[in-house]
Amino acid sequence: MKISDLGEFGLIDRIVKTASCNTKRAPIGIGDDAAALLLSPSATLLATTDMLIEGVHFDLMTTDLYSLGWKAAAVNLSDIAAMGGVPRFCLTALGIPSSMTVEQVDEFYRGFANCVRKYGTVLVGGDTCSSRKGLIISVTVLGEAEKKHAITRSGARPGDLLYVTGTPGNSGAGLEILKNRIGGRVQGPGKTRNSMTGKLIDRHLRPIPRVEWGRRLATARVASAMIDVSDGLSSDLGHLCAQSAVGAKVFAERIPLSMDLTSAKGLKQPPVGYALSGGEDYELLFTVPPGKIKKLKTMSIVATEIGIITRQRAVRLIDERGHGRPLTATGYDHFRSRRRRRPVR
Amino acid sequence: MKISDLGEFGLIDRIVKTASCNTKRAPIGIGDDAAALLLSPSATLLATTDMLIEGVHFDLMTTDLYSLGWKAAAVNLSDIAAMGGVPRFCLTALGIPSSMTVEQVDEFYRGFANCVRKYGTVLVGGDTCSSRKGLIISVTVLGEAEKKHAITRSGARPGDLLYVTGTPGNSGAGLEILKNRIGGRVQGPGKTRNSMTGKLIDRHLRPIPRVEWGRRLATARVASAMIDVSDGLSSDLGHLCAQSAVGAKVFAERIPLSMDLTSAKGLKQPPVGYALSGGEDYELLFTVPPGKIKKLKTMSIVATEIGIITRQRAVRLIDERGHGRPLTATGYDHFRSRRRRRPVR
Repeated sequence: MKISDLGEFGLIDRIVKTASCNTKRAPIGIGDDAAALLLSPSATLLATTDMLIEGVHFDLMTTDLYSLGWKAAAVNLSDIAAMGGVPRFCLTALGIPSSMTVEQVDEFYRGFANCVRKYGTVLVGGDTCSSRKGLIISVTVLGEAEKKHAITRSGARPGDLLYVTGTPGNSGAGLEILKNRIGGRVQGPGKTRNSMTGKLIDRHLRPIPRVEWGRRLATARVASAMIDVSDGLSSDLGHLCAQSAVGAKVFAERIPLSMDLTSAKGLKQPPVGYALSGGEDYELLFTVPPGKIKKLKTMSIVATEIGIITRQRAVRLIDERGHGRPLTATGYDHFRSRRRRRPVR
Repeated sequence: MKISDLGEFGLIDRIVKTASCNTKRAPIGIGDDAAALLLSPSATLLATTDMLIEGVHFDLMTTDLYSLGWKAAAVNLSDIAAMGGVPRFCLTALGIPSSMTVEQVDEFYRGFANCVRKYGTVLVGGDTCSSRKGLIISVTVLGEAEKKHAITRSGARPGDLLYVTGTPGNSGAGLEILKNRIGGRVQGPGKTRNSMTGKLIDRHLRPIPRVEWGRRLATARVASAMIDVSDGLSSDLGHLCAQSAVGAKVFAERIPLSMDLTSAKGLKQPPVGYALSGGEDYELLFTVPPGKIKKLKTMSIVATEIGIITRQRAVRLIDERGHGRPLTATGYDHFRSRRRRRPVR
């Protein structure tokens, strides 16, 4: 169906239905000038926003709309996770090109709603407008953290140990595989891919925001600083160290890599390269004071110790022979770098 | 200066300086994964988002970047005003084309910051990315209202009187004048225009969000329903009536028009046409139960009674001879209509 057959307000009604936007915590949701939302009286509000532009952040030749909706939600939920917060509400602003159908918008919102619902979050407002050129998505997620318990990037201290969740690098490798076979376009939800390559692609298209782990690290007061890996381990560790006014040593052989990544054929970089500079893993990178390691180990969070925070402000990568080299940020800079395109910041 | 000379993180630092983003109410602001914000314990959170796309919502031939920044803030602040709330925090996501300079981004944020600051609001976060085609702006504003005191669009009852603040129509006429003389491009802040035409253009480029009036109407519990006039009186009254399940009669000759509008030369429509369908006035349209009119009159809010809410669900315009005709919504629909372009929804 053409969106012009439905009109702006018909489209909004349809989004409300697809994304089932009602909740007791949002006494006023979509349809008024602003949403009215209830927070816990003792909470700090967390707020984050991210914009995704077709041709810059994503390519409709390498993603289906369900996955794109999922990812637009996940990358914002991940920011709340990295603060140790609980995501509660989200708003979407969409610039929709005339080539897009109502069914495609449905598919986007199905993916979006499935992701936010999985993490206890609800769509409460937004904006829809026409775009002359390409799809434009802007998502805002609001969350909660106990007062003063949000985990910032600036709390790392020398001697703290450095951890990363999961197995970074899968997403970057998945993107490379996708780009190399533009024909193999992925369609719709629920298409489980059993191959190892398929799993790498899945992690790129539908990343998993580590909301539960981030939350547990915050409530147990185990992490001293935290950031999500969106730009790549090297860049995001650089941000964390800069904001904490510290440096770090990362031991290359400790970086956890998935079997899917290490056994993938025909990749241009060695597997660890994707972990260091691939980006879009949405794993959590966090620091833990030595006295809290014991507690961390009881918490059933899948996290690996990969390094240590140093007083000396350089960030260094130590190889298996114990030789160090500067770990320069190789993540994406939207304005400076044109070397490579990273779909989501 | 080229943005590529500064890089993404250099640009963010510069925005923080231009928009002076610190506040005690935002213990964590720009630079972390999400902002952490403090609300009053008794407050409901209000949240609204709007996207502005170059070529759809604005044209850099008819606006300067300072005004664009001001307007991007104002249209969102107006949504909070229309709920009777206090705007507190905002986030901006910008897609920036390579043709734009650092100085232009500065100018945008100067306008944005001056507007939000004037209304006690602070920039606490956002996103900057590159855009392949044109400037894209997405703004989210967060505000507060006392629990259960937010004024919705759905509270109007038959017999309530209908009011509008200020003099609607100025913005629509201003846009038409601007389009007719693309050469007369407006530059920079503080260029006061003394001519009547200049005032109409000013109201289009730098609308005034009625934050203070909306707030007073809410705390005095005078308005039963409220909406801001963004799509034009006819469309926005249609939204208010639809959500309240009522109709309305509007008396054409009571619609307050500015001297600037009534005396403007060479406009295509009669002045009242701009008030009814011009849009982007960001005046408040609200309903008041008869028992509260006396209180309203003591409140020094510049508002004019223009009609009455009816049980019969039609919205009718009554002319000076007492003849009625259906007042159809002539505001902009982003997907259905291509008749005219309305710069901001």
